[in-house]
Amino acid sequence: MRGIYFDGRAASYREDLPMPEPTPTQSLIRILYAGVCNTDREILKGYRPDFQGIMGHEFVGVVEASSDPFWIGKPVVGELNAGCGHCVYCRTGREKHCPERKVIGMDGKDGCFGEYMTLETHLLHLVPEGLPMTEALLTEPLAAALEIPKQVHVDPETRVAILGDGRLSYLTASVLRLTGAELTIIGKHPEKLQRFEPFGRTVLQTADTFPVVVEATGAPSGLALANKLVERQGTIVLKSTYAGKIQVDMSFYAVNEITLKGSRCGPFAPALRLLAQGLVKLPPVELYELADFQAAFTSPAFKAGFSISR
Amino acid sequence: MRGIYFDGRAASYREDLPMPEPTPTQSLIRILYAGVCNTDREILKGYRPDFQGIMGHEFVGVVEASSDPFWIGKPVVGELNAGCGHCVYCRTGREKHCPERKVIGMDGKDGCFGEYMTLETHLLHLVPEGLPMTEALLTEPLAAALEIPKQVHVDPETRVAILGDGRLSYLTASVLRLTGAELTIIGKHPEKLQRFEPFGRTVLQTADTFPVVVEATGAPSGLALANKLVERQGTIVLKSTYAGKIQVDMSFYAVNEITLKGSRCGPFAPALRLLAQGLVKLPPVELYELADFQAAFTSPAFKAGFSISR
Repeated sequence: MRGIYFDGRAASYREDLPMPEPTPTQSLIRILYAGVCNTDREILKGYRPDFQGIMGHEFVGVVEASSDPFWIGKPVVGELNAGCGHCVYCRTGREKHCPERKVIGMDGKDGCFGEYMTLETHLLHLVPEGLPMTEALLTEPLAAALEIPKQVHVDPETRVAILGDGRLSYLTASVLRLTGAELTIIGKHPEKLQRFEPFGRTVLQTADTFPVVVEATGAPSGLALANKLVERQGTIVLKSTYAGKIQVDMSFYAVNEITLKGSRCGPFAPALRLLAQGLVKLPPVELYELADFQAAFTSPAFKAGFSISR
Repeated sequence: MRGIYFDGRAASYREDLPMPEPTPTQSLIRILYAGVCNTDREILKGYRPDFQGIMGHEFVGVVEASSDPFWIGKPVVGELNAGCGHCVYCRTGREKHCPERKVIGMDGKDGCFGEYMTLETHLLHLVPEGLPMTEALLTEPLAAALEIPKQVHVDPETRVAILGDGRLSYLTASVLRLTGAELTIIGKHPEKLQRFEPFGRTVLQTADTFPVVVEATGAPSGLALANKLVERQGTIVLKSTYAGKIQVDMSFYAVNEITLKGSRCGPFAPALRLLAQGLVKLPPVELYELADFQAAFTSPAFKAGFSISR
């Protein structure tokens, strides 16, 4: 089959990939669309040197074979993290934190930048009727944004600063505005910031401080800015992951009683409910052929993806 | 009057200090006992180079003059942080975070290592009847320990690790055991750890992980240990303040969705309620004369203090 294969150093488009075979607990999914995430770009830069396999973890597809006949023929999205099933995290609904987890497209498991993919059946979610497939494609990044209100109570009168003008910030703003909270989006690129105008105030800088600051810039300078903008006793939600160690004044957090909350993957079910009800403003996705993967990875589009099987 | 004066570089015992005069919003307190805190030792090491004045911030005393006649003759303890009264923090019950605050014995305000001290009257708390003065002396550090259950819900089935075998850890354990939670105290000194045996399990090291870890070692190695011991999606309460910046892998917090909660001064009222009801096991305080301040500051005792006016 066709797909984009990462050999530990570089990605290539191949047409000779073996057809995946589901185990007795898995389903076989024909991939319709797949989304390119920054993590994929990081993998190309060496973020996951131990990974070899088909890339990609954002997808929507149709089940062609399954451990549970219910799923056959159904349109689905699916979660990334496949846990061991036995550890304290797997046994307490926190499979995404299983230390032995496999993660599609980046750790121990082939991903969705191919015509077919297998996935543990219990990680599947049904695409609600009427929801366009290209919108369902954004379930995973939207779920990551929904992890924020899962972790922090954003009440309707909270003032929230969102740092960064990329896609994660976009979905974060798109979700947090639903609380009624006053949003301020702080970015570096006026042309990108313009997209955020429906959500709240967009600025290049501000002298204000905020009880809740979401750091989604992806750069350590974002943490320095978050420290500057957070109110004393306020909360910083840390969505960014920085490569390596950085210099931090930890006493700042103790003395000012700041809460720093690391935040990663989130819940699929509420993401699908919001999508089905048309409540989330989504970034446009520019679709490429698998063979044009270089163009997709370097696309200047706000969000790029692949149109695979139609 | 007599007192211990810090001139910006060193402390000295003086008998020629001027008698403080309360402003129209303050009270004049005759100090009975004062406690030595690690912060005082840090000041001697240069932690507050801009401070000049009488040291000390843990005290119990008797009001001799006051802006409010109610207080005259009453035994009191008092809070450290005197805010501006106008900013968003002062107006929302968070005076301790006022950016313009004065802090007794360390920032812009004479402290309690002297025969008399003035304090804003609204910062006073009445010592409950029957509570020995030497126990009331521990209200301030006990309040700092109570800031932890104010910030984090420690439910009766939570397993909590407390890192450090010093006084703050002692009061933290003393408070958190009241929740019914299972405590593990991790220290470096078997002879100090022995004191914690009534509170829970005491160990030099452990392979366990914990949903809540209190870092109260005062050393950056404590943070590294906290990172090792905290469960994924767990909480680290950061009580320690480290001098300067340290190298931190911030992605660890994002990927594992750790909550890091800075924690400083706490509420006096519940501290006094617990003390009055005899519910808190307190460390013994070894009392010194003011003139013997060097001995008090270098005391090997678990907790040292001054007996000033009787």
